[in-house]
Amino acid sequence: LSDPANLGNLRIVLVRTRNPLNIGSAARAMSNFGVLDMRLVTPFEKAFREAVSAVGAAQLLAKAEEFSSLESAVVDCSLVVGTTAIGHRELQHEIYSLPGAAGKIRQKLAAGRVAVLFGSEKTGLTNRELSHCHWLLRIPTREEHRSMNLAQAVAIVVYELSRGASTPNAKNKLPTAAADMETLARINQALREALDLSGYLHPRTAASAEEKLRRMLLRLDLRAADAEVFLGMLRKILWKLKGGKSE
Amino acid sequence: LSDPANLGNLRIVLVRTRNPLNIGSAARAMSNFGVLDMRLVTPFEKAFREAVSAVGAAQLLAKAEEFSSLESAVVDCSLVVGTTAIGHRELQHEIYSLPGAAGKIRQKLAAGRVAVLFGSEKTGLTNRELSHCHWLLRIPTREEHRSMNLAQAVAIVVYELSRGASTPNAKNKLPTAAADMETLARINQALREALDLSGYLHPRTAASAEEKLRRMLLRLDLRAADAEVFLGMLRKILWKLKGGKSE
Repeated sequence: LSDPANLGNLRIVLVRTRNPLNIGSAARAMSNFGVLDMRLVTPFEKAFREAVSAVGAAQLLAKAEEFSSLESAVVDCSLVVGTTAIGHRELQHEIYSLPGAAGKIRQKLAAGRVAVLFGSEKTGLTNRELSHCHWLLRIPTREEHRSMNLAQAVAIVVYELSRGASTPNAKNKLPTAAADMETLARINQALREALDLSGYLHPRTAASAEEKLRRMLLRLDLRAADAEVFLGMLRKILWKLKGGKSE
Repeated sequence: LSDPANLGNLRIVLVRTRNPLNIGSAARAMSNFGVLDMRLVTPFEKAFREAVSAVGAAQLLAKAEEFSSLESAVVDCSLVVGTTAIGHRELQHEIYSLPGAAGKIRQKLAAGRVAVLFGSEKTGLTNRELSHCHWLLRIPTREEHRSMNLAQAVAIVVYELSRGASTPNAKNKLPTAAADMETLARINQALREALDLSGYLHPRTAASAEEKLRRMLLRLDLRAADAEVFLGMLRKILWKLKGGKSE
């Protein structure tokens, strides 16, 4: 299994989580982005495994490990990052906004294990828990509404970290063939003729109108297949304008 | 209020959402990132406002508008983007991965309104709903587990789009105003009528032809000014097809 972003080295550590639904939702988001190692430190609900319904993440949850202390949950990691919604309180720590933090985490993932901690829904991480962190990460929410749903915060963090894996544009469709100039000229001619027959074009301005039409057609950035369809439509309309009878 | 990423022009449109909790969770994530305009198209639960508890997003939910059709929910938008978990099915549409799609959306947000659609939890967006989209966006989940929780998908999309606020190098070109959906609908109608009168459309296939036409028009990426010119042309041609006399 290829793992270009080294997500196999990433541990998501949920500390004192209160709502089992959040554990399930976080598991689903982790699974979506290929982060498969969840660790739970003294979750509020002991029976979380029964309580959650995490679509497609049953396996991840079955493997999730429970720890009785934060220390033991991060003992094998070479970088421990705490998440916080607060901007200013923790003067002891450096705080990085997620996009920048992700770059630093990705570098470490290439060499060793990294834990990202999420505190309880009610209190976040305590000062004591933060004391186990190398530095802090903040998701850049707006000042007026900082408090995020726990599972959504996990989702955004694993999305951002998995990004290292995606070679940009690799998954896009092959570029679609564009209409060639010859087809565009045919469309231009048919359209002009139709406009002429309809009285849209006045003889005095016909020349400049042709230029305007051509520019407009080029701006349309027509695909080859669409251009053929469009030309077919115009020809049918033209035929009718010239007095053709309905079939 | 400063809005460097133009998020005031962004509409999050939830289509046929089944679970009211997802509406509340999506609202909270939107509020976290300063995206305040939610639109609901025929939500499954009529009583969504009572059913949800969205921490800190009560105001946003109170302002959320309900629409009885997708058309009416996006009529004032100049770009409509569908979200999909599927990579290959929709051959009619171009699909962009979120990081790239976000760049395209940010450019459009500088000039006009953009709607991002999220389908129902069970089915996603139907083909008919997709026919109202200019192109599709996919969150780059892993192949083995593509199906995301609806509210988490919304959270990741608004996180990614709000990021524009901190990228200062997107001001090179003045954006050109794009045609809105209402003008496109008028063009679609005029073109259909012209094709009808010319015998291009057969009664048996008219319905699917309308969808095809709409998709083609959306692919054209018409500017507002060009759309008006095009509509004027079509109306003149129509007038002639209906037996009008040359001036």
